[in-house]
Amino acid sequence: MRDPITVTILGSGAAVPTPKRNTSAQVLSVNQVPYLIDCGEGTQTQMMRFGVKQSRITAIFISHHHGDHILGLYGMLSSYNLSNRTKPLHIYAPSEVHRFFVLQKDFFGEVFNYDIVFHPISFKGVKEIYEDKRIRVTSLPLKHKVGCCGFLFEEKEKEPNINKDAIETYELSISDIKRIKDGEDHILEDGRVIPNAKLVTQAQVPRKYVYCTDTAPVIDKYDVVKGVDLLYHEATFDCKQNLLAKKTGHSTSVQASEIAKSVDAKRLLIGHFSSRYKEVSPLVAEAKELFPNVEAVKDGGVYTIE
Amino acid sequence: MRDPITVTILGSGAAVPTPKRNTSAQVLSVNQVPYLIDCGEGTQTQMMRFGVKQSRITAIFISHHHGDHILGLYGMLSSYNLSNRTKPLHIYAPSEVHRFFVLQKDFFGEVFNYDIVFHPISFKGVKEIYEDKRIRVTSLPLKHKVGCCGFLFEEKEKEPNINKDAIETYELSISDIKRIKDGEDHILEDGRVIPNAKLVTQAQVPRKYVYCTDTAPVIDKYDVVKGVDLLYHEATFDCKQNLLAKKTGHSTSVQASEIAKSVDAKRLLIGHFSSRYKEVSPLVAEAKELFPNVEAVKDGGVYTIE
Repeated sequence: MRDPITVTILGSGAAVPTPKRNTSAQVLSVNQVPYLIDCGEGTQTQMMRFGVKQSRITAIFISHHHGDHILGLYGMLSSYNLSNRTKPLHIYAPSEVHRFFVLQKDFFGEVFNYDIVFHPISFKGVKEIYEDKRIRVTSLPLKHKVGCCGFLFEEKEKEPNINKDAIETYELSISDIKRIKDGEDHILEDGRVIPNAKLVTQAQVPRKYVYCTDTAPVIDKYDVVKGVDLLYHEATFDCKQNLLAKKTGHSTSVQASEIAKSVDAKRLLIGHFSSRYKEVSPLVAEAKELFPNVEAVKDGGVYTIE
Repeated sequence: MRDPITVTILGSGAAVPTPKRNTSAQVLSVNQVPYLIDCGEGTQTQMMRFGVKQSRITAIFISHHHGDHILGLYGMLSSYNLSNRTKPLHIYAPSEVHRFFVLQKDFFGEVFNYDIVFHPISFKGVKEIYEDKRIRVTSLPLKHKVGCCGFLFEEKEKEPNINKDAIETYELSISDIKRIKDGEDHILEDGRVIPNAKLVTQAQVPRKYVYCTDTAPVIDKYDVVKGVDLLYHEATFDCKQNLLAKKTGHSTSVQASEIAKSVDAKRLLIGHFSSRYKEVSPLVAEAKELFPNVEAVKDGGVYTIE
């Protein structure tokens, strides 16, 4: 059974929260390890409400320094501190987010008893910014009123599995196995060649998730997002608000569907809805015409990459 | 029927929020006009959840500049701005709260399209800081790690009502009525004196509410709180944590009950519970021994002054 990858939505609204939608935040969970993306006001409470294991988070990714994406950060870091966290925390964010943290830390005169390491992200081109044994994260510069990045989360490619039968039949040594995993054929003492494909089972194709807000529709220019399994794209407005979207550096749901189609996404989630929409089903309907596999996220919703 | 006065609890937890308790905030509602007191992270969302008419708020009272009492302020003010508020907003708070607002406003470069007027409160003695046609608010310096004030909210004394019968019987003029409302007797043309008490029905006694957190138990030194109808007093700890309470500038639930008894409060609400307590019923039980009319508040709870 393959490790599950899920996205838990903590906030699916735009700048102003509504009774149903908090401001932006979500958790990508890879094999039950949570990665936090953006941190609007109330994110720590949303995590408790939706069962996210907060203390396990060691990496946070922030798209940009607007309030609806960062006003929950200080309170969360402070709660970690008061809860005697010792594990370091790494934050990948535009440098302005660091500046905002320092302003608040200095104001409160708080001494943090765990390491908070800010890693500034660049708005110039696609950059790999993070990797651990499970995933690799790439920043994708977006087009908004201030410097802003989307993020591509990619599962790491796994080595092929050597077939157990092959190990026994050919009495493979550890160095044989290493060579075969690297793709080589196996040559027997009598000179016979056993093709690599007969010795291994290829690991499953790594899965990809893209988080993309706040932005005009631009990420189809990045080759790395092609064929993404799950694309979260903002859809702040409906298609009648095209000009407003352009003016404010946002997208309509139709533009989100165009992007999904253009990058050959397998599935599209839309969110970051303006508080003017009490019902977002019209936005979904508009997007569906071009890209049928689309869904509006809701706070507390959990979306799985199959 | 008398106008209702209610307190709606938005956050009843101490520094770290829990799944059930947000950080400090509450709304006092006098004749359906809401006054916000403190503004922990997520206060704007709590107000939506618990049906507070946010847009009607024109006066906010902040006790002190610790994060769990102010981290929700900027987001709320910003949401008002994005929702095209024009009505001015008055904030009665220690000057540090203003400084924190300015830091954030400068950081975000936000231009507010409505007036936000900060009124600094003093930590030296009891001061009347606010009045409108319904209430009068007095700040009560507390004893915490930083400058902090509690607040006494007093309904204004109403004029007595002239009895309708008297108006008809004695053909009272407007100037007669004014004199009688000021307490004078009425003298008829033939010299007979009609005593004031026969002409008027006294208005009901004004009600009082006191909000008191974060603090060591000190407010019994203020005469103005004597006989308060409803006292909200912090009870961060149980009585075994007496030393910790003293060290951190907080109170135990027993100390809250001592204060309630000492000031002759009619009813006591306790809150601002440390996140260590999953259940606060032991804290209530401890307080009840000395002061039976005590209750632990909960988020979303509405408490009425009868």
